[in-house]
Amino acid sequence: MSATLSDEALDLIFREARTYNGWLDKPVSDEQIHQIYELLKMGPTSANQQPGRFVWCKSQESRERLAQHAMEGNREKIRTAPVCAIIGYDLDFHEQLPWLFPHTDAKSWFEGDEEGRREHAFRNSALQGAYLLLAARALGLDCGPMSGFDQEATTKEFFADQPRYRADWLCAIGYGDRTTIFDRSPRPEFDTFNQLI
Amino acid sequence: MSATLSDEALDLIFREARTYNGWLDKPVSDEQIHQIYELLKMGPTSANQQPGRFVWCKSQESRERLAQHAMEGNREKIRTAPVCAIIGYDLDFHEQLPWLFPHTDAKSWFEGDEEGRREHAFRNSALQGAYLLLAARALGLDCGPMSGFDQEATTKEFFADQPRYRADWLCAIGYGDRTTIFDRSPRPEFDTFNQLI
Repeated sequence: MSATLSDEALDLIFREARTYNGWLDKPVSDEQIHQIYELLKMGPTSANQQPGRFVWCKSQESRERLAQHAMEGNREKIRTAPVCAIIGYDLDFHEQLPWLFPHTDAKSWFEGDEEGRREHAFRNSALQGAYLLLAARALGLDCGPMSGFDQEATTKEFFADQPRYRADWLCAIGYGDRTTIFDRSPRPEFDTFNQLI
Repeated sequence: MSATLSDEALDLIFREARTYNGWLDKPVSDEQIHQIYELLKMGPTSANQQPGRFVWCKSQESRERLAQHAMEGNREKIRTAPVCAIIGYDLDFHEQLPWLFPHTDAKSWFEGDEEGRREHAFRNSALQGAYLLLAARALGLDCGPMSGFDQEATTKEFFADQPRYRADWLCAIGYGDRTTIFDRSPRPEFDTFNQLI
């Protein structure tokens, strides 16, 4: 195992990667989607909650349906992306803990604590969404994360059979068109938002 | 730029990386902490909010103070880690948007919407924490993320001069002691928590 990532690898997933608003006409395969999940699921979540629930909208029809619930400025991005993932979570993720975290009774920690479950599901599914984004980049894909959409309507439409799931944010995935990126927004110096004590 | 990460690189940051509960007696330098931040800050946040606020507890004294606010089972992990980062967020991150997202008046989107700000700060700082964790691994370090601690007491103690900041979760960082990891918890098959439509 290499001790650290190479500069080229750090460029690929962090430094040179950008948020894309348009896509090359080059498909993403089901196999690539599975590969992203196989990586993201290895990332840590608190007590292995794995609260993320993912809908990979790949067909034109599913992306059209999703685009209808997005803010005007995001619709075309969703329609034209090879894939757009809905990152959601399960408010009752604790029901799965007996098999996901089998060595102790972690389910009981969350029973009757709906507010605590909401917080854990929200935080840990966001971590999983970040793993998804970096995993996609690591596999040579580009991403376009978005939060401008109607979460409630999307939840109703895409998680209709799962009343405890919630849609949280979106991530378009494909091969980005370099002409569609904005100038890089400023990044803070260390001392602005960090304390080292 | 390489088109994809190598298998060795994917092993390092996703597949073979583990959550550590104990640490080798090998320090983490200030320079390494800065390197982690230089990578994590490049990760995308909604409208470049960059709501994460990070306290890197590196001195024995700061880690002792933090450990006092942790659950019993997490105290020794914090005391003995070379560094333990507090991942927090700023409920008033929108005040920074005029310089972080200069091409439009994004600050006005969030004014008067405390609940919306809380949701955005929580989600996007969690993404940044995940970037932190994967950046640390990419630089050859190991992580031990934790959420078992008193957020309110930690907020009061470490963000005393910033009344709008909130402590959210912790991530110990160092060179992990392989004897302190648990067996890998089960990971779901694709079909369990995913739809591909």
